[in-house]
Amino acid sequence: MKVNGKYYRTVWMEGSTVFMIDQTLLPFEFKIFVAKTCKESCIAIKTMITRGAGAIGATAGFAMVQAYLEAPQNGFETFVLKTKKEIEDTRPTAQNLFYAVDRVFEAGKHSIENAITEAQLMANENITEARLIGEYGNELIEDGFQIETHCNAGWLGFVDWGSALAPVYVAKEQGKNIFIYIDETRPRSQGARLTAWELKNENVPHAIIPDNAGAYYMSQGKIDMMIVGADRVAANGDVANKIGTLEKAIIAKEYGVPFYVAAPLSTFDMNSRTGNDIDIEQREDREVLYQTGPDDTGEIREILVSNPGSGALNPAFDVTPAKYIKGIITEKGIIEPDKSKVKMLF
Amino acid sequence: MKVNGKYYRTVWMEGSTVFMIDQTLLPFEFKIFVAKTCKESCIAIKTMITRGAGAIGATAGFAMVQAYLEAPQNGFETFVLKTKKEIEDTRPTAQNLFYAVDRVFEAGKHSIENAITEAQLMANENITEARLIGEYGNELIEDGFQIETHCNAGWLGFVDWGSALAPVYVAKEQGKNIFIYIDETRPRSQGARLTAWELKNENVPHAIIPDNAGAYYMSQGKIDMMIVGADRVAANGDVANKIGTLEKAIIAKEYGVPFYVAAPLSTFDMNSRTGNDIDIEQREDREVLYQTGPDDTGEIREILVSNPGSGALNPAFDVTPAKYIKGIITEKGIIEPDKSKVKMLF
Repeated sequence: MKVNGKYYRTVWMEGSTVFMIDQTLLPFEFKIFVAKTCKESCIAIKTMITRGAGAIGATAGFAMVQAYLEAPQNGFETFVLKTKKEIEDTRPTAQNLFYAVDRVFEAGKHSIENAITEAQLMANENITEARLIGEYGNELIEDGFQIETHCNAGWLGFVDWGSALAPVYVAKEQGKNIFIYIDETRPRSQGARLTAWELKNENVPHAIIPDNAGAYYMSQGKIDMMIVGADRVAANGDVANKIGTLEKAIIAKEYGVPFYVAAPLSTFDMNSRTGNDIDIEQREDREVLYQTGPDDTGEIREILVSNPGSGALNPAFDVTPAKYIKGIITEKGIIEPDKSKVKMLF
Repeated sequence: MKVNGKYYRTVWMEGSTVFMIDQTLLPFEFKIFVAKTCKESCIAIKTMITRGAGAIGATAGFAMVQAYLEAPQNGFETFVLKTKKEIEDTRPTAQNLFYAVDRVFEAGKHSIENAITEAQLMANENITEARLIGEYGNELIEDGFQIETHCNAGWLGFVDWGSALAPVYVAKEQGKNIFIYIDETRPRSQGARLTAWELKNENVPHAIIPDNAGAYYMSQGKIDMMIVGADRVAANGDVANKIGTLEKAIIAKEYGVPFYVAAPLSTFDMNSRTGNDIDIEQREDREVLYQTGPDDTGEIREILVSNPGSGALNPAFDVTPAKYIKGIITEKGIIEPDKSKVKMLF
């Protein structure tokens, strides 16, 4: 997508350096974070400078290339395996991370050039897949639709296009009239910050709503469909995604609002039999207790937004059972998330 | 309840002056707001210096007294009626406001002394009722229970004790081991700010959770019951309460978690046949887009927490249909919110 008239990918690699849009500064500042070493790429994933299933995957693939490049001749294999583990430890829930690291690790067994080619190929694939998700998803969107989305599964969450927002961008491209209700998505507010930034940038009409307001708008018949992304899809069609997704899926079912997940097949994990097998990341409570943003002079400040001395719990994801999901929009088409149909794709 | 060892009511009147704990400054500063005129009391209700069903009711009753005291001999009745309307226009959803204004207005027809007595009586009744709600509600709480609550329906929301938190305080008084999951309750964060402040003050173990995390904890079997307050109860048992209540009630039903509403009978509105008859206040989008709190020097700052230029929608309440509510805890006992049983009480 373009920012200020210039085309950007969310993450890319030149030589041994990984570049990425710094998503902790958005929407207040647009800046490229430069990771010259594998360690810096790992920090970028862990601190969410880059985030979102596809972008994490691409960054992790590039980080694996950096690991190969940095490995000393003496103890090459030990170094590579240790560093591979360090990359994998950055975020436990995102399937694309493990998928990308494995692919680049395998390719690198032949040569470092092979690893580089594989990582670049994967980033390109990510874009092609996202565009296809956009086209399949667009078929579900009727002119005049009001769509709710949670968190950010837009182009910032991928290398380009996105998963949940790709259908929105294709629908917009085709001249359909659409309106997006964006869940704020506390505690990190990826909806209010990143999805809103993306949609404003692309002139898609939208409004931010508190996470609490989803059921209200569904009960008022205002929501025609809901689309979210995924961090991991289990073999039975259960979906791990940003905390709050489960809540919205249950509400959507209650009000007969079709609930779709958009994800490339690289997000599917056939080793997770059901959602119960998926490890849920617990993040520090500071993300709930404090908030960051510019004051009226534009200076970025961190403020306490809760009772001093009270603690918080901060699970980053939840698991939505397949029964609440109407369809999973993939680059191969839309599948119904019951066991047999998910398996058919693999 | 006590604050720093001194007993306080949330709101009280001395002479023609209304005093109230300023809830916009909590939990960062404890300060009493002084409303010398009816207009100041109205501003206090509108800007949520005082808030919560019972506290709004008591303040509105005192404001009605101020209206009588301020009325000129010439055009007394016109002034009183006009001012009554101004008080009623401050917050459209809270039933206790209308209930209190009506009672004091009627009493004042006889004499101003009568109006004063009535307003003070109502504030006292509010405490007695809340304590009774606490005792009935406590019977539902078993030792070791983990309870989720939304928004603030504690003593700050009443003159004392509260509605949803009154059973918690009684259970604590009786030595029961309990743990409270507090929904942050965006956009005004009454959970993270006010409920957490109250519970810390009373040494009740608790954690703040993002509004998005309710379904996660229920799906993990961590929540034994949920108790919330109410701004208005319709004749059929539908309940208007803070935005997000509907969402939690649906989730609770899905996971078999008993969902209780705590409210005095003054919150019941027999003129609202169902929840559809209840007017839902839409508040300004600034409450969603900005947040306020102290920075690391303790200075209170307002920061933007969303994409510059994106708008927000901010419905303050939603309506939970009676079918999701296991029971309504009142000062007369716990009733099941189906039509016949609600009507029996009146």
